[in-house]
Amino acid sequence: MNMSLGRGAGERLVVIGGDAAGMSAASQARRMRSPGELEIVAFERGRFTSYSACGIPYWVGGDVPDRDRLIARTPEEHRARGIDLRMRTEVTEIDVAGGRVRARDLEAGTESWTSYDKLVIATGARPVRPALPGVDAPGVHGVQTLDDGQALLDTLAGASGRRAVVVGAGYIGVEMAEALINRGYDVTVVNRGSEPMSTLDPDMGRLVHKAMTGLGITMVDDAEVTGFPTGDDGRVRAVATADAEYPADVVVLGIGVRPQTSLARAAGLPLGHRQGLLTDLAMRVRGHENIWAGGDCVEVLDLVSGQQRYIALGTHANKHGQIIGTNAGGGYATFPGVVGTAVSKVCELEIARTGLREKDARRAGLQYVTATIESTGRAGYYPGADTMTVKMLAERRTGRLLGVQIVGREGAAKRVDVAAVALTAGMTVERMTSLDLGYAPPFSPVWDPVLVAARKAVKAVAAAD
Amino acid sequence: MNMSLGRGAGERLVVIGGDAAGMSAASQARRMRSPGELEIVAFERGRFTSYSACGIPYWVGGDVPDRDRLIARTPEEHRARGIDLRMRTEVTEIDVAGGRVRARDLEAGTESWTSYDKLVIATGARPVRPALPGVDAPGVHGVQTLDDGQALLDTLAGASGRRAVVVGAGYIGVEMAEALINRGYDVTVVNRGSEPMSTLDPDMGRLVHKAMTGLGITMVDDAEVTGFPTGDDGRVRAVATADAEYPADVVVLGIGVRPQTSLARAAGLPLGHRQGLLTDLAMRVRGHENIWAGGDCVEVLDLVSGQQRYIALGTHANKHGQIIGTNAGGGYATFPGVVGTAVSKVCELEIARTGLREKDARRAGLQYVTATIESTGRAGYYPGADTMTVKMLAERRTGRLLGVQIVGREGAAKRVDVAAVALTAGMTVERMTSLDLGYAPPFSPVWDPVLVAARKAVKAVAAAD
Repeated sequence: MNMSLGRGAGERLVVIGGDAAGMSAASQARRMRSPGELEIVAFERGRFTSYSACGIPYWVGGDVPDRDRLIARTPEEHRARGIDLRMRTEVTEIDVAGGRVRARDLEAGTESWTSYDKLVIATGARPVRPALPGVDAPGVHGVQTLDDGQALLDTLAGASGRRAVVVGAGYIGVEMAEALINRGYDVTVVNRGSEPMSTLDPDMGRLVHKAMTGLGITMVDDAEVTGFPTGDDGRVRAVATADAEYPADVVVLGIGVRPQTSLARAAGLPLGHRQGLLTDLAMRVRGHENIWAGGDCVEVLDLVSGQQRYIALGTHANKHGQIIGTNAGGGYATFPGVVGTAVSKVCELEIARTGLREKDARRAGLQYVTATIESTGRAGYYPGADTMTVKMLAERRTGRLLGVQIVGREGAAKRVDVAAVALTAGMTVERMTSLDLGYAPPFSPVWDPVLVAARKAVKAVAAAD
Repeated sequence: MNMSLGRGAGERLVVIGGDAAGMSAASQARRMRSPGELEIVAFERGRFTSYSACGIPYWVGGDVPDRDRLIARTPEEHRARGIDLRMRTEVTEIDVAGGRVRARDLEAGTESWTSYDKLVIATGARPVRPALPGVDAPGVHGVQTLDDGQALLDTLAGASGRRAVVVGAGYIGVEMAEALINRGYDVTVVNRGSEPMSTLDPDMGRLVHKAMTGLGITMVDDAEVTGFPTGDDGRVRAVATADAEYPADVVVLGIGVRPQTSLARAAGLPLGHRQGLLTDLAMRVRGHENIWAGGDCVEVLDLVSGQQRYIALGTHANKHGQIIGTNAGGGYATFPGVVGTAVSKVCELEIARTGLREKDARRAGLQYVTATIESTGRAGYYPGADTMTVKMLAERRTGRLLGVQIVGREGAAKRVDVAAVALTAGMTVERMTSLDLGYAPPFSPVWDPVLVAARKAVKAVAAAD
């Protein structure tokens, strides 16, 4: 044990986790405090820092030519900025009372304690891997880390057939379906729900279903996977459900992630219903003045429902890191919460959502109306004016915007940002109808699709009472 | 004079002007009131109704195959919905005290009075045509009406050479430059200002200048046109400035528009500094309970500066019409004002602005800081990630967002909508840094360019005091 060997005159900040939230926090703290004022030690159990996990489907699909393009900052670059970064070193215990963490050097196999004045927990998420027969067989892949991506690419390079089965039809599932289509595979998506993209309402998910089928993807709905049958060589050969078997040369798991908070739980830190760490608005772990947490291991405040949510997303992790680094560096910043914006695509189909789905609204005790419209992303007469569908939820009586979902082609996804800002501002759908959005024929009809939806939602609010 | 011949039991609504604002108002009033309750008479001096003037450059450029695609609703369609539409009939006088308008049938040459209970003035804008030698010569074209567009296309079809000169470098000028490039012309843009797009700050206009030059367009800056020399055939052959002559087989005027308010002025209705009609928030002409005005003939409230502005734009005209029709139909709606959003493009270059430029802020008595950043519209590693430049203005001390300008390629223009909503909500740039905008590698870097600009603006606000 070396409790305080090598400490300078200043304080020591320890960061657990070397990806987006952790290294953003470390970097921002370093910008605010010199090495003499604040020593920064960061532990990362893997081989990479600060990389874009969201980019893995595009690397696998061939849009991004090589792995290193996904790495925003290497360990060497972090070290050059005065961060004592310890790679392949896993923190195995947080001693909150003692103000120290125990870490294992995964190469050497040795363990030691490091004390901290300030601690940042950025342990991320772990992918859901169902405990089913064959789940660990060769040919079954997760896609959360760069090593996962490389292993999948190795399997694809050596695969004899071209049949891919994707388990799960959320963001990762649909993005991996696109990646495998781009690699020339016959793709089957096996989905537990009745429609893909359960982050959308089912009526909007249905549009995604139709478009994916149109791309030649075989969609299997309402299907519970029961196992991953293997061949004589021990490799996966199919995905089994209660009713059928889907032959597979490669299987990709895209079932979602859970917060990686076993360390935090063992240390007695507060977790929410989704098992994510609970923080205050300055991203401090509740009840702990000198511990912050951010990224995929925390729950966040949903500004629309007022409830805690769990959303693993790189853009939040970066923002959290920025806030944490500012506060740990002696400044002041807060993260007010999220509205639940997410965008994705399957080939040419763009998918976007923000705010509450119908079931979220009910769960939050909100009564609501809905309005769904079809419009185009450009003036109807302008070339390439493709249809998009916009669904809007507004609160009954008050008319407050509660959520927007958009499915369509070019220009559909980022249009949801208008609704994200309107949600943040607590706007009513009536106020939205007069929003001064950019108009020119190549970019929008004279009434932007979001405004058309707002106009219809205004009528629905009026008709409901 | 037929003061009230043919009136039904109900009231009569008279609409002056058959384009976006006027016919939106008429249509919306008709939705709210049956012909028995409200007679609607609309006068249009031209040959078309409800068409997209904004689409003319794309028709001239060949993106839109024919004129009729630009017409949203024909006179016959309006009549089928119970609107008594009188085409080629120009209102020549408004008698406010008498509650009547005098109109001239331009075909028959006859005049008659029509009384109204409620009046909508939607007389639009007139293009600026400088009183210079040769301005009326064949080959010199405006592009405000469908007839203008057809005349220009006729000239292009008959032109012997391929040299086009565009006078003016605002929205119309740059869009017409694109149209003429697409038609295979050598294009020269003669511009009074030092940079194109005076609706941007000069530093952002400079980026447009560079891009247009890169497209092969000859940009002539700081140039005051002195005349349009003609050849022996009487056709224009050049555009002359104090220093030079620019040979031209065709000349397009894109110098801007002014509110068409001579009728209103003669009637004693209130006009603002820009000669646009002044209305209240329900789009009623100030001081006149039964007269509304909207579209390109009115001034609007700028929500950022608190001052009246003149902005001729189809999307505002449609919104005004909707508000006016609702109120004239006995309902209630208001138009809260604008934030000054505008988007455009020159070939692949997208141009957007919202809120105040530096000189607008000064004029409004606001002190401000600026922040300019470069980022990409997609994750840097994703194919097609092009650079965009975002400039942000924030108020000194309060940090309130004052304006955003964006110049870049795909995905640049409509990103300004985020800032438009944030301006409407009165957000500070610090609040903007945590906006929950859509993130996925094909659509945005992990920090959206608008957020990167907001982060830099926060630092500028802090540094200024």
